[in-house]
Amino acid sequence: MSGGDEFTVIRDVMAPLAHHPGARDLDDDGAVLTVPSGTELAITKDMMVEGVHFLADDPADLVARKLLRTNLSDLAAMGAQPCAYLLGLASDRRRGREWLEGFARGLARDQEEYGVSLLGGDTVAAERGLLTLSITAFGEIPAGMSFARERARAGDVVAVTGTIGDAALGLLVRTGVLRGLGKSLETGLVSRYQLPEPRVSSGVALRGVVHGAIDISDGLLADASHMAAASGIAMELAVEAIPLSDATSQAIHRDPALRDRALCGGDDYELLVTLTPGDVARARNIVRRCGTSLTVIGRCQEGSGVTFLDDEGSPLDIVDTGWRHSVLAAGPLDQGH
Amino acid sequence: MSGGDEFTVIRDVMAPLAHHPGARDLDDDGAVLTVPSGTELAITKDMMVEGVHFLADDPADLVARKLLRTNLSDLAAMGAQPCAYLLGLASDRRRGREWLEGFARGLARDQEEYGVSLLGGDTVAAERGLLTLSITAFGEIPAGMSFARERARAGDVVAVTGTIGDAALGLLVRTGVLRGLGKSLETGLVSRYQLPEPRVSSGVALRGVVHGAIDISDGLLADASHMAAASGIAMELAVEAIPLSDATSQAIHRDPALRDRALCGGDDYELLVTLTPGDVARARNIVRRCGTSLTVIGRCQEGSGVTFLDDEGSPLDIVDTGWRHSVLAAGPLDQGH
Repeated sequence: MSGGDEFTVIRDVMAPLAHHPGARDLDDDGAVLTVPSGTELAITKDMMVEGVHFLADDPADLVARKLLRTNLSDLAAMGAQPCAYLLGLASDRRRGREWLEGFARGLARDQEEYGVSLLGGDTVAAERGLLTLSITAFGEIPAGMSFARERARAGDVVAVTGTIGDAALGLLVRTGVLRGLGKSLETGLVSRYQLPEPRVSSGVALRGVVHGAIDISDGLLADASHMAAASGIAMELAVEAIPLSDATSQAIHRDPALRDRALCGGDDYELLVTLTPGDVARARNIVRRCGTSLTVIGRCQEGSGVTFLDDEGSPLDIVDTGWRHSVLAAGPLDQGH
Repeated sequence: MSGGDEFTVIRDVMAPLAHHPGARDLDDDGAVLTVPSGTELAITKDMMVEGVHFLADDPADLVARKLLRTNLSDLAAMGAQPCAYLLGLASDRRRGREWLEGFARGLARDQEEYGVSLLGGDTVAAERGLLTLSITAFGEIPAGMSFARERARAGDVVAVTGTIGDAALGLLVRTGVLRGLGKSLETGLVSRYQLPEPRVSSGVALRGVVHGAIDISDGLLADASHMAAASGIAMELAVEAIPLSDATSQAIHRDPALRDRALCGGDDYELLVTLTPGDVARARNIVRRCGTSLTVIGRCQEGSGVTFLDDEGSPLDIVDTGWRHSVLAAGPLDQGH
């Protein structure tokens, strides 16, 4: 595919996704969004680059869904209900119509699943370079109800949805570094890497219940540290309390060095929240009704920094395996592979 | 610059730009935007890639300002008042702190000039690849007052702000293809290529006066064609009426083949609008008060397509020099160099 044809193909393939009334049509450079009175617009922008955030041969539909879902995860961490998104696609011209159709199929499926639609965007192409994808996602939230990473308070308990570390180990399976867990567990881990499940319904349902919130994209340690620093508090997390899937438990049992990878590896897209101890039971029920679990893993206190404790309450050294948080927003710099 | 340092540098350099109350801080993945009641949010997203939309050695501050201004031009074409933007930066790791500081200086200057501020964004880095920049810009407009390319009507006159073709010829000067015009005229043309002047105040002031509107990013012929197709009308444009700067007039006088380049070359970022003939005098006064000119260049009628007419009213063949409009939004595919 080369020259102008490429853009005609992209329009053909993407146009069915743009059923939002504000999208005008995809020929238009702009879009219009109406925000209901009393509602704030939550906005996030995440980019993904081939070879950094996804592997060059990852299936196109999964790349699309991961791109959309990482943005929805940011909205979940604000308690926002996703409504629409813009897509930016800097093509390297090495991918043809079939790839684009797979990409659009992935977006269509998740538009359905999360109730969002394509509002517009931009496509550019360069002869060399890497496939670079960018989504700006929008969500609605009643005015003043959003939560944020800087709202954790001393005295809060710290809790996390779902399980931690699966995506990081899934990447190790995907790249052939981790083997021998058996087909079923390995497939499950890879799926957690390729197709995160943003906790959108939990985020919306937890409005008014949680104080601080962040989604875990850079790893539990890094994102807990971001929250502690932004809130001006210290966090103690009990390693034994951190919820692990069977697959990750087994992998760590076989190779204890994988524990730190699980705690620092990133791409979990679970919610890390803080709340008043008396609200834990209610929050657990809320999250359970949204189809996942909420597990208390620690507490906030005066001070700074994040400390992991062993089952006797002694500090543990965790070796951060090198993920970095992007400054302007979420996105690992390097996956250490 | 390599590894994590890069992100610390970017935060240091960009943080002073994010004084919007909804920006939280740049560490946060999300931002919150409050839209006043009765107001719609106009949204646009434009990407730029090194070597396609700007030259690798263009000054960093001008790259930043052009990136922001191309987005503001889209908002101008909707009649929106710009308020905030998100920045996406996919770094190639070949540019250091000095480049970033120049980039931020350019943004700061235009934030001041256009009254916008940085709301958030994302930064990613890859070892190879091209510098890829993305802005999502937001503007406010009273509900129902936005204009769009599909609102031109048969019977409307067609008018354009400023002058046409300067940026296209400026690129030819910049790349050494066009010479001998003299330093002063050449510098002026290059400046029009590197630093477009989005017609933001004209766009806002023309609310309620114009019908169809589009900003000329892909060239007069291409964007007139987009508007004609979107509105389901035909356009006749009088070549002799098209406003040219002294520099472009002289260049065409010396080499008549440059005329088609001027009409098709793109990067003008002028507004092409349609309006009722009786409103022309009022619209001219409005645009003059905004510091530029509005020139009637043709009319809309039943039918389809865009025809250029010579001074005797006979159709002229214009050779489109090959710009392509991005499907998902504005942005030339290739600048033909």
